Amino acid sequence: MKRRALVSVSNKEGIIPFVEGLVKEGFEVVSTGGTKKAIQEAGIPVTGIQDVTGFPEILEGRVKTLHPNIHGGLLAMRDKEDHKAQLEEHNITPIDVVVVNLYPFQQTIAKPGSTFEDAIENIDIGGPSMLRAAAKNHKHVTVVVDPQDYDTVLAELKSGVTAETRRRLAAKVFRHTASYDAVIAEYLTEAAGEGSPETLTVTYEKKQSLRYGENPHQKATFYKKPLAKKGSIATAVQLHGKELSYNNINDANAALAIVKEFTEPACVAVKHMNPCGVGTGETIEQAYDKAYEADPVSIFGGIIALNKEVDKQTALKMKEIFLEIIIAPAFTEEALEVLKEKKNLRLLTVDTTKAEGKEASLTSIHGGLLVQDEDTFSFDEADISVPTKREPTEEEWSALKLAWKVVKHVKSNAIVLANDQMTVGVGAGQMNRVGAAAIALEQASERMEGAVMGSDAFFPMGDTVEAAAKAGVRAIIQPGGSIRDQESIDMADRYDIAMVFTGVRHFKH
Amino acid sequence: MKRRALVSVSNKEGIIPFVEGLVKEGFEVVSTGGTKKAIQEAGIPVTGIQDVTGFPEILEGRVKTLHPNIHGGLLAMRDKEDHKAQLEEHNITPIDVVVVNLYPFQQTIAKPGSTFEDAIENIDIGGPSMLRAAAKNHKHVTVVVDPQDYDTVLAELKSGVTAETRRRLAAKVFRHTASYDAVIAEYLTEAAGEGSPETLTVTYEKKQSLRYGENPHQKATFYKKPLAKKGSIATAVQLHGKELSYNNINDANAALAIVKEFTEPACVAVKHMNPCGVGTGETIEQAYDKAYEADPVSIFGGIIALNKEVDKQTALKMKEIFLEIIIAPAFTEEALEVLKEKKNLRLLTVDTTKAEGKEASLTSIHGGLLVQDEDTFSFDEADISVPTKREPTEEEWSALKLAWKVVKHVKSNAIVLANDQMTVGVGAGQMNRVGAAAIALEQASERMEGAVMGSDAFFPMGDTVEAAAKAGVRAIIQPGGSIRDQESIDMADRYDIAMVFTGVRHFKH
Repeated sequence: MKRRALVSVSNKEGIIPFVEGLVKEGFEVVSTGGTKKAIQEAGIPVTGIQDVTGFPEILEGRVKTLHPNIHGGLLAMRDKEDHKAQLEEHNITPIDVVVVNLYPFQQTIAKPGSTFEDAIENIDIGGPSMLRAAAKNHKHVTVVVDPQDYDTVLAELKSGVTAETRRRLAAKVFRHTASYDAVIAEYLTEAAGEGSPETLTVTYEKKQSLRYGENPHQKATFYKKPLAKKGSIATAVQLHGKELSYNNINDANAALAIVKEFTEPACVAVKHMNPCGVGTGETIEQAYDKAYEADPVSIFGGIIALNKEVDKQTALKMKEIFLEIIIAPAFTEEALEVLKEKKNLRLLTVDTTKAEGKEASLTSIHGGLLVQDEDTFSFDEADISVPTKREPTEEEWSALKLAWKVVKHVKSNAIVLANDQMTVGVGAGQMNRVGAAAIALEQASERMEGAVMGSDAFFPMGDTVEAAAKAGVRAIIQPGGSIRDQESIDMADRYDIAMVFTGVRHFKH
Repeated sequence: MKRRALVSVSNKEGIIPFVEGLVKEGFEVVSTGGTKKAIQEAGIPVTGIQDVTGFPEILEGRVKTLHPNIHGGLLAMRDKEDHKAQLEEHNITPIDVVVVNLYPFQQTIAKPGSTFEDAIENIDIGGPSMLRAAAKNHKHVTVVVDPQDYDTVLAELKSGVTAETRRRLAAKVFRHTASYDAVIAEYLTEAAGEGSPETLTVTYEKKQSLRYGENPHQKATFYKKPLAKKGSIATAVQLHGKELSYNNINDANAALAIVKEFTEPACVAVKHMNPCGVGTGETIEQAYDKAYEADPVSIFGGIIALNKEVDKQTALKMKEIFLEIIIAPAFTEEALEVLKEKKNLRLLTVDTTKAEGKEASLTSIHGGLLVQDEDTFSFDEADISVPTKREPTEEEWSALKLAWKVVKHVKSNAIVLANDQMTVGVGAGQMNRVGAAAIALEQASERMEGAVMGSDAFFPMGDTVEAAAKAGVRAIIQPGGSIRDQESIDMADRYDIAMVFTGVRHFKH
């Protein structure tokens, strides 16, 4: 008895050779619409779906395969006598191989100018039904959703596709339908204006298998969003160097986020997810010099992000020290030549302009997931207040803005000391605020001339301001809002410090 | 003309009143299998699906609704003349309301002793097809997957369900099918033994809308895994106090993970995701005393996790200071009474025994996702080596083990100083290792008697050991593996320090 294969693909890549293979193996190929036409044009015998269903394609093709003659053929268990008898009774032929892929919903919504109606029209109904039915019945049916599996299946068909392959292909089908519906769900949920739905399903495409995670004993994988935009490490172009590691990706993401805060030439050095040095300047070389000067010790083995094209001069300087990664929007050819002499140094190009809109940020906890908007906000000019007697000078303002941009990206509790071109002290990840300040102040010790302080959250009392004042801090930027703000204000006034309240907190963990 | 509703539900909660409402609104109700039987038994008129399809249910119900008479009725666009004409030609009645929910795949696989065959049998094929078809055509069709929406739909039916509601319900359907297939995909992928598939789709159920995220300007939601196990903040029982905030959940998760490391009575205080004090003892009260003593400043406003039932004495002590959350496997009634006097204090019970197996841990970056196994490993006894002249004493060993358990959970670079009952210094989140050690050593200053040091990664050179030795550290535990290990070993020998290499690194960011 002739075995039957059902073929209906939106992506026609490689389909003709595969169908030829099926026919050669003795399969009757049933097909529909554009796929059937393509097979016919290739001169391969093909049965129309209508000849199987005895029912025409209706509603512009919306209904063609949703028929018992198809789904009975997909779902019947060949090892059950009553199933076999029912197939016979209703004259239904079992379908042993299913080759289906889906309308390109994702590509449709990614197209500029595509409408809601276009999106809806590109939700495939018949395809997922066949795929899911065949995958459920993978004990008897081979189901292929990915053209990359054609060769394996053809090779195995001669002696019968193995149970292992059938199971693997079935798992892939459900990954595919889950992902397909997750993208539709996200699209419709956004269209319906729902912010916090009862179920969250997120889908990603594998970008890279990683050697390991944060530590060698942890397995890890790097995924990208299906519609990942420019300006992400997931879409960055690697020009040179070893593969990115788990920690590299995390650090590079942190470095990129910081450098995006600046429009003037800026350079950020990151170690262990925290900025250790940030510099700005008239040129990218000056910015690098400042970032280096900010902490010449910690930058060793660090990750550098710059927001302007890297020139030869800057490249020569960066080449002098051990760096893991350099990220920039571009490199001049000379700069590339210089840096490529370091075999392992990873060079990435990526858009460093600040993106519009905000993504959801995900962090799993054991047994759960925390989802929040990315922290893309800085402050509202209107909410700024200066509660101290003295207002910041223009130069202090410039330094305060730099400190504020950086402190947002330092792990809490965070204190950043800066002048108007660079950080001079970074106190990160402390369990109390005084401790964070102490670290930053010690680091800045010799460089307190003109230094200002940024704090990611308010001061619970006056002690941090006092420590800062004694070390020579001239101005402070912080959210304000403590019930004991007055203590900090009084302390600032006592030392003639100008203090700015932003009304915005920037915890980060 | 009578409007038609299709009803086929696995979860029969609330279905009878809803169907009564439909009939009252003049609907003809079409149904199948168990749902039809339930409706009939309630004395409500119902049409069998076979009378609509003219085709019997076959293959033990695997194929009953997959028929053009159903799907044509679901998918026809009522505003297109050719669609209308085709319905008429094939004698297909439009279906305006669809009420479907799915076989309980998730509950099936959660059942102890359920087999692969049980799981496969509980993959619903017909249900998702009807739901997806109706949701695609939500311009004309109202689709209800969630019994919680019955009332809204009934109320709106009188004057016609609004476009907004239909769109909202359609979005919910795709969230449901996406989630349904994500769970199946995960199950089959695991069964097929695939570790790093080309697509990752993960699904969560909303546990709680949060007031905000890490900061007030960030929106946030807390989700739990569909099959979340005990021993998670997502499944903890809150006995008292305000709702958990985003930062609370993150901190509580960190505290829980640390306290799970211990079998003896232990207490952990966490601030900003880092342990600030960890204590152990014969009793939970002693453990709390030690954790408090470890850092009496940072514990203020912190989160406490304990691994034994909290008694009255311990409760009285904890009541004396401001704490955000207390987490324990249980509280005695007297302890509860004491602690409930603090109106806002959050009290959670949760299993604190170390779980078997490991979950995937997810961290998004902008545009992507990093997935890794949780770091559940400690070290292999067989990999332990002592490269120094002196071996640790028994007491030092006990302290080293405590330091090692804690340092794994401190953000990198991390240094923990401990004696055999408590931490005495925690250096967290530093961009260089010497800096982390300096913080820990300063904190421990007066309490160096018998103190040992744990480092989450190797020492790149001898300087940290030297600083530790000068401060009085007697033993050190660290991964080892630096090309300059010998410097650290020589330095340790010079000061008669015993040093243990674990061969395991514990970066955490």
